[in-house]
Amino acid sequence: MSRSKQFLSDNAASVHPQLWEAMRAVDEADAPYDGDALSQEMDARFGALFGRECAALWVATGTAANCLALATLCDPHGGVVCHREAHIEMDEAGAPGFYLHGAKLMLAGGAGAKLTPDTICAEIDPIRDDVHQVQPHAISVTQASEYGRCYRPEELLAIGNLAQARGLGLHVDGARFGNAVAFLGCSPAEAVGPAQALSFGFVKNGGMSAEAIVFFDPRLADIARYRRKRAGHLQSKGRYLAAQVLAMLEGDLWLENARAANAAAAEIASSCGDRLMHPVEANELFVRCTIAEREALRAQGFGFYDWGADAARFVTAWNSDPAAASELAKAVASL
Amino acid sequence: MSRSKQFLSDNAASVHPQLWEAMRAVDEADAPYDGDALSQEMDARFGALFGRECAALWVATGTAANCLALATLCDPHGGVVCHREAHIEMDEAGAPGFYLHGAKLMLAGGAGAKLTPDTICAEIDPIRDDVHQVQPHAISVTQASEYGRCYRPEELLAIGNLAQARGLGLHVDGARFGNAVAFLGCSPAEAVGPAQALSFGFVKNGGMSAEAIVFFDPRLADIARYRRKRAGHLQSKGRYLAAQVLAMLEGDLWLENARAANAAAAEIASSCGDRLMHPVEANELFVRCTIAEREALRAQGFGFYDWGADAARFVTAWNSDPAAASELAKAVASL
Amino acid sequence: MSRSKQFLSDNAASVHPQLWEAMRAVDEADAPYDGDALSQEMDARFGALFGRECAALWVATGTAANCLALATLCDPHGGVVCHREAHIEMDEAGAPGFYLHGAKLMLAGGAGAKLTPDTICAEIDPIRDDVHQVQPHAISVTQASEYGRCYRPEELLAIGNLAQARGLGLHVDGARFGNAVAFLGCSPAEAVGPAQALSFGFVKNGGMSAEAIVFFDPRLADIARYRRKRAGHLQSKGRYLAAQVLAMLEGDLWLENARAANAAAAEIASSCGDRLMHPVEANELFVRCTIAEREALRAQGFGFYDWGADAARFVTAWNSDPAAASELAKAVASL
Amino acid sequence: MSRSKQFLSDNAASVHPQLWEAMRAVDEADAPYDGDALSQEMDARFGALFGRECAALWVATGTAANCLALATLCDPHGGVVCHREAHIEMDEAGAPGFYLHGAKLMLAGGAGAKLTPDTICAEIDPIRDDVHQVQPHAISVTQASEYGRCYRPEELLAIGNLAQARGLGLHVDGARFGNAVAFLGCSPAEAVGPAQALSFGFVKNGGMSAEAIVFFDPRLADIARYRRKRAGHLQSKGRYLAAQVLAMLEGDLWLENARAANAAAAEIASSCGDRLMHPVEANELFVRCTIAEREALRAQGFGFYDWGADAARFVTAWNSDPAAASELAKAVASL
Repeated sequence: MSRSKQFLSDNAASVHPQLWEAMRAVDEADAPYDGDALSQEMDARFGALFGRECAALWVATGTAANCLALATLCDPHGGVVCHREAHIEMDEAGAPGFYLHGAKLMLAGGAGAKLTPDTICAEIDPIRDDVHQVQPHAISVTQASEYGRCYRPEELLAIGNLAQARGLGLHVDGARFGNAVAFLGCSPAEAVGPAQALSFGFVKNGGMSAEAIVFFDPRLADIARYRRKRAGHLQSKGRYLAAQVLAMLEGDLWLENARAANAAAAEIASSCGDRLMHPVEANELFVRCTIAEREALRAQGFGFYDWGADAARFVTAWNSDPAAASELAKAVASL
Repeated sequence: MSRSKQFLSDNAASVHPQLWEAMRAVDEADAPYDGDALSQEMDARFGALFGRECAALWVATGTAANCLALATLCDPHGGVVCHREAHIEMDEAGAPGFYLHGAKLMLAGGAGAKLTPDTICAEIDPIRDDVHQVQPHAISVTQASEYGRCYRPEELLAIGNLAQARGLGLHVDGARFGNAVAFLGCSPAEAVGPAQALSFGFVKNGGMSAEAIVFFDPRLADIARYRRKRAGHLQSKGRYLAAQVLAMLEGDLWLENARAANAAAAEIASSCGDRLMHPVEANELFVRCTIAEREALRAQGFGFYDWGADAARFVTAWNSDPAAASELAKAVASL
Repeated sequence: MSRSKQFLSDNAASVHPQLWEAMRAVDEADAPYDGDALSQEMDARFGALFGRECAALWVATGTAANCLALATLCDPHGGVVCHREAHIEMDEAGAPGFYLHGAKLMLAGGAGAKLTPDTICAEIDPIRDDVHQVQPHAISVTQASEYGRCYRPEELLAIGNLAQARGLGLHVDGARFGNAVAFLGCSPAEAVGPAQALSFGFVKNGGMSAEAIVFFDPRLADIARYRRKRAGHLQSKGRYLAAQVLAMLEGDLWLENARAANAAAAEIASSCGDRLMHPVEANELFVRCTIAEREALRAQGFGFYDWGADAARFVTAWNSDPAAASELAKAVASL
Repeated sequence: MSRSKQFLSDNAASVHPQLWEAMRAVDEADAPYDGDALSQEMDARFGALFGRECAALWVATGTAANCLALATLCDPHGGVVCHREAHIEMDEAGAPGFYLHGAKLMLAGGAGAKLTPDTICAEIDPIRDDVHQVQPHAISVTQASEYGRCYRPEELLAIGNLAQARGLGLHVDGARFGNAVAFLGCSPAEAVGPAQALSFGFVKNGGMSAEAIVFFDPRLADIARYRRKRAGHLQSKGRYLAAQVLAMLEGDLWLENARAANAAAAEIASSCGDRLMHPVEANELFVRCTIAEREALRAQGFGFYDWGADAARFVTAWNSDPAAASELAKAVASL
């Protein structure tokens, strides 16, 4: 099975050469924790990217990023509204319950794993305003969503308006934020909307071990810094994480990588037609196909996960081979 | 200020070249999380090192290693006996309270930040055996200690016997375990004693971002695996951590690095005489000297932390320059 | 509005005279906490009632009883399967998240708020057996259910068999356990099935401030005793709670009270016909009726809660006035 | 052993007749939780007592009162400074760790179990202002202290000024607040000083099962209301607790009861002379006496706890028999 034909996930892809270089370049520096020059530079760099004041922390995983961010927006006795197929609900082993000290995830619906003001209200409006029921404190959306769908800027604004009207915080899980911006063609600021905190993912986009939590309210970052250490996520050689993050921002490498992944996904999608369970707006494809069809694809060397009984999931990465993507497209067309 | 004259800490030293190589070597592999070949190999490699069954997990920081280990040994309503100057008490931002869900650290004394059966009993014997007082569930010792002292195998056995007699778990914080083994000249098994879990530190010993939690009871590892993910410490590209750990074990690089650090410390210690607050048994020196003396040393380019009002702390690392150590020794002798 | 025509809830009804007497009778005793003679007697009394070894703790509320029990059956990283309309999910303000340190409630379906092996499996079978998803540790059922339905002994056995096969604990929320036993006409042991822990409710059944957690595995009680104190639920004058509990057991007062409440409910139900949303098997009635019909009933002095837009909920209590129940039955029949 | 000669503790004394009456008087009312008229009246009654806006919640135990109050003043990643012999540290089974989600108790010294600005600063000034060490968020003092000593109003002001200067909350554990006010002869407001929250104890002062948490900042009470329910401390028949609290406030019964207890303690103290380990300022006496002397006292029918190897602890209560106190005084004098 050729490595180039692997479309299992983007979460274990190789590290981009520029990140290796950036890490090697800080090998001699020795300021511990986040006291190094690069860590100190992050606020300004994200500030420039988003066009407003930012306070940014590196952290090794998306789960930690999401939970440290949410812990600043939701009290232990509160709840976080998220999609019922959100990563924080489905794939983080109960980490929100740990980091938020027992706060509740409030599960809402929405096509393509995207929340809407309506689906949010359908969940929270029936909550009695009394002490017997957990009250919502925050909303978390995933950009791009778990089904590879992107929130349009106006959709985020609508959710943000609802959040503001209800006194709720807003968090964006941007494990694939780069893919969303690449697809939307808008500014990063538009793609994050009126959120207070963004988990800006790099690991799935060519990084090794660094995500950024970007706070648009610096007071939240002050809390998160204590919580990061308390969670054992303040690495003493944090400069290697800062180096990854800044290398990703340098020359918009994050966007370039995401575009490459999206392009490979689009190439595959071009031949999938009605087989697509969701429009392809990022780097994930959910493709209806029978067991026999999947066997046929695997026999040709393609790697991917089953998605339930009747579909396959393909994920492209920053380093997906365009030729392999074309080959897969043809293979799907030939099924 | 020359970098070679820095004795601030070992916690931000450069990464050993063999670890860089090992990480690069797994760049192409893409099994996510701990599903890669190297992660899978860890149990056997540690098993060989300790001469008994082991189950080992990589994790990015010593704080996470300590707390994930302790969470398997102490219930939320219990307590962990540790030295009042233990790292888990003094420098982990309350992480044990977070990971152990509010369990209590029970602070005992002992020269050189080392517990003894007597100091432990002085703390736990007065605890009434009723539900009004938190009962001890585990003991945590630091090998080498926070003052660079090493537990002799017989000392660990005595503590282990006490632990067993009282039904307590035993954890070893081995952030500088290599330095302890290097000093003691015993086997790793003897240096860890009858513990159920060891935080085996590599980051301070030439690593980048990988420590190992070594469980001598595999059932505890099964719990810790869930807790690691729940804490956001299961990295999707964990192979880079596994690569670091295995490279450290390869040819006993961990021991070689520790010996180098210890040798540099011994060289400096050789000229410190009565200035030493603690015998030097690892890679840390606590040296009495006046403010003026410290200024004199700094004027010569040496870097180190003040230790209270009347002392300096010097820490050597795997890559400390022997010449610089000799130079510092002379400088101290000349004060 | 006459008090006798109140059918709002059983949770605030008067205290039974025998409990007042029992409390007054221990006024002079002064052994603190649970060291008094009555508290010490509880294990034996419940043991006699259930025909097997029991260890029982008093506690002031059903929420505390449920959560202290569940905390012995589910680790912080695990999950508790319950009905999506279970009290622990809907009406305990996130208490399970607090007491279980962030463990997850796993919501399953089932008619009448009753779980079945099938509905449980529908929830837990799709959970991947890996560290990314929370694994179930326990099941909690409510006897009688939140819709006033009772589990038959064979239904509990089937759930218990499933629990055992999957290695899950089983808890029974018996806030209205007396009503269930009264309806089922079986023994208390049959009505609790193969559970490890029962929240045996007395407050809704004529008590003032005492529920019992009955453990059928005494080791769990040993843990719960520490957790009860740690939760601030160990009252220093616990003898007043023990007195309530024992007075309830004396001469099966709990059963007598429950029968009275059930009889009143049955009387009302007799005239409700197709209006009943659920068969009436305890002391709660969910009755379809329009806003106008509810207004008509309220105009006649009856008190009750709306149940959504199209129904009313009536709850009878140990001291419901049979005449008022008959009157309500007639009023409903006349709608 | 005559009951009247018991001086074991005040925590299990009989309930005052006026409280029995008050509880019986609300037996017929049936508004659940804290929706009853008496619960609703508490804010105003405490407001009148303290001469400023108050928001008050009943709760069954002092441990719950302390922890619910502290949870509003200290984040999970912060610390609470208290005396190393404080009840929250010594006798609450780790409840602060549970309720405050792992926050740390920071133990300071002070004669008579009383903190001073100096002892507080000795503990918190060495804390480095960085994320590696837990930062203090609040201070908790006990009025009267665990050794029966009272904070003078000016002492509380000094601590309050320090708290304000450092941005810390201030909580008063008033398990024996009545005894303190009775001794000090000042107003309740002066005896609580500039605290944000007071645990106003009634159980040790003739109550059955009701303490009050009095918040001087209503926003904190809003949080505590959710936390109380979440902790299983919102009793559905809360009216019986409210009745106790209001009966205690009625005609200053709390003060009358405390004065009686203090008078009995003073009577005993009058004969203790140099035997007293602490001045007697409330209702507790710590009296040096040998084992033989204690045996002699017990042989005369007196009940009390040993206090370490060389002392006895006597506690008087609201209903202590003055004759028995005199008799004990004589017995001590005759030793």
